[in-house]
Amino acid sequence: MTRVPAAEAPTGAALRDSPAVAAALARIKPEVRAQQAYTLTAPAAARKLNQNESPFDAPDGVKDAVLTAARAAPWNRYPPYTPGDLLERIARRHGWTPDGVLVGNGSNELIQATLAVTVGQGTPVVTPVPTFTLYGLLAAVYGGRQVGVPLTPAFEFDVAALIRAVRDTRAPVVVVNSPNNPTGTPLPEGAAERLLAETEALVVLDEAYQDFGGPTAIPLLARAPRLVVLRTFSKAMSLAGLRFGYALAHPAVAAEIVKAKLPYNVSRLTLAAAHAALDAAPLLEERTRAVRESRDLLCQRLRAIPGLLAFPSAANFVLVRCLARPGTEVFHRLAAEHGIVVRDVSRGGPGLENCLRITAGTHEDVDAVAAALAAILG
Amino acid sequence: MTRVPAAEAPTGAALRDSPAVAAALARIKPEVRAQQAYTLTAPAAARKLNQNESPFDAPDGVKDAVLTAARAAPWNRYPPYTPGDLLERIARRHGWTPDGVLVGNGSNELIQATLAVTVGQGTPVVTPVPTFTLYGLLAAVYGGRQVGVPLTPAFEFDVAALIRAVRDTRAPVVVVNSPNNPTGTPLPEGAAERLLAETEALVVLDEAYQDFGGPTAIPLLARAPRLVVLRTFSKAMSLAGLRFGYALAHPAVAAEIVKAKLPYNVSRLTLAAAHAALDAAPLLEERTRAVRESRDLLCQRLRAIPGLLAFPSAANFVLVRCLARPGTEVFHRLAAEHGIVVRDVSRGGPGLENCLRITAGTHEDVDAVAAALAAILG
Repeated sequence: MTRVPAAEAPTGAALRDSPAVAAALARIKPEVRAQQAYTLTAPAAARKLNQNESPFDAPDGVKDAVLTAARAAPWNRYPPYTPGDLLERIARRHGWTPDGVLVGNGSNELIQATLAVTVGQGTPVVTPVPTFTLYGLLAAVYGGRQVGVPLTPAFEFDVAALIRAVRDTRAPVVVVNSPNNPTGTPLPEGAAERLLAETEALVVLDEAYQDFGGPTAIPLLARAPRLVVLRTFSKAMSLAGLRFGYALAHPAVAAEIVKAKLPYNVSRLTLAAAHAALDAAPLLEERTRAVRESRDLLCQRLRAIPGLLAFPSAANFVLVRCLARPGTEVFHRLAAEHGIVVRDVSRGGPGLENCLRITAGTHEDVDAVAAALAAILG
Repeated sequence: MTRVPAAEAPTGAALRDSPAVAAALARIKPEVRAQQAYTLTAPAAARKLNQNESPFDAPDGVKDAVLTAARAAPWNRYPPYTPGDLLERIARRHGWTPDGVLVGNGSNELIQATLAVTVGQGTPVVTPVPTFTLYGLLAAVYGGRQVGVPLTPAFEFDVAALIRAVRDTRAPVVVVNSPNNPTGTPLPEGAAERLLAETEALVVLDEAYQDFGGPTAIPLLARAPRLVVLRTFSKAMSLAGLRFGYALAHPAVAAEIVKAKLPYNVSRLTLAAAHAALDAAPLLEERTRAVRESRDLLCQRLRAIPGLLAFPSAANFVLVRCLARPGTEVFHRLAAEHGIVVRDVSRGGPGLENCLRITAGTHEDVDAVAAALAAILG
């Protein structure tokens, strides 16, 4: 298990003194205390299909470029206050304006900042459910409440219900992950336009997985100041370990979100890696095509296994429901008997009972996990 | 000037359409809109004494170790969910327990998380003023209000007034930077104990500059679950460019703060750099001693300049008040005529009129800035 190491022997009265500890905890907001921290339960296993990472390490050219830049960089100096060159490159990539680009230590940092500037005591935050758990956790930390709008039983977005929920609750913000984690579902064509036209909310579209499929809302930015689009280099760009993501928004909105973002938040080495990954775009796009093929192959192979229901996916993972055995049992047996770790999402929200999320890695990964599931469920 | 690059020509109606932009901005919390973003005004200059960085790049051994680790690391994989080895090393360094250590992308991220879990609508947050502006900005973003307790005219802490302010406002949290930025003042011996004993607040001690002087509150942790101590590798450890800091707190309090901290927040390369910097501790401590000598020399040289008042400092910088010329004029002339950039803090809070903050770099830096100020003010 990856977890906090056991505490050493208590180092003083503080670790035992319950009234003093209770007094400290009383200073924490009750809405925070009511939340569970984000957790990851991951048995040690040789084949890692649990975090929707790229199966390919960063290209050698990217590593070389970063290491060369790192050697020459002054590590004692803060990163530039505004990484102008990089903002311009990202803006050019998407036909947007540099002052409408915010970079972060992973796109999670931009989700966090966007919610921090929109969510206060009692603020409703509409999201589909099930979805990425961080939205609800962060909304709660800021005193808000997640208004979850269930996906359909086939895990498709119910756009009309999302719109109704925003209107009924007068939510200032709706967060949609497309394709959606952990279901793989893309927002249908035209849905982002409808969310913008039929509500007055800030529409935050987390497109962490959009490189793998589904429509992008980026072309809407030019006429929709209420749209914030989030992208990450952790998936298709092979840089999960270096933490880089960005937000695209109207410059006036970006100028507000930046107030909740820490200065100098992206390290010099990560800025260099982002540049190098953009330089390597053709190779990374080729690999993204390979992952999409793996995803389709994975879906096809899983559908051939009796006792398993595989849902369609536009992302780099496939959600399955275990019908023949309990999902959590299958999760543990995959690790213990086959050395494969996937994500047990069976307690991750409505409709996810007995569901596992399996990252589409290489073709070899697909073969291995399909054979293992067939053995366990067959 | 380091600033956001100019916007390109508007890419669509959104950049011009005022009612639509106003509708987007209406979704941002009013308390956020009322804030100014954190800013840095820094003219281009050869000698950089404006961000309290170490004048020494990371040691070659640190760079070598990180680059070797980086080459071998899987950049496509998220950092470990909990960097157990590093938490244990930091805990050992301070005689604390690993589950009472939280690592962040700079200590700013831990300030942010600590305020996020304690501050909501209307929450008073007591801080001395003037101090690091980020505390007040983040408190406001979370809906709270900074209750500023003025330092004395000599910029010393008024501990009794801090305690009164916490008690009068029933503030759940007090944030003290010791030594204080931008004044250099250390909290007096025994003051942290008094804050803990005479208030019921969470006492957040930001010790970003403590390597350079003043007492540390770390020994109090074992009997004070209401204490949170923040440390950074951006100053004495020469790693401002790589972003690393940490919080020490009671494990039960750390388990609450972690809910507002993003998962996988510290990049693989920064984790490697933190390890390497700890390995290089003897060399870095030697350099820290050299910087303390520079700081004392800087103070002495500045005191010899008529028309300038230099305040005592326990940090790696010295605050001066320009008496003979306006501070902002001196700031601009230092850059334009002498190629030296310092920090103009003259609008940074009560008592800072005409004040500049000057980082203590090398002895050569001290000579250069003292000669330049003597020329401008003499």
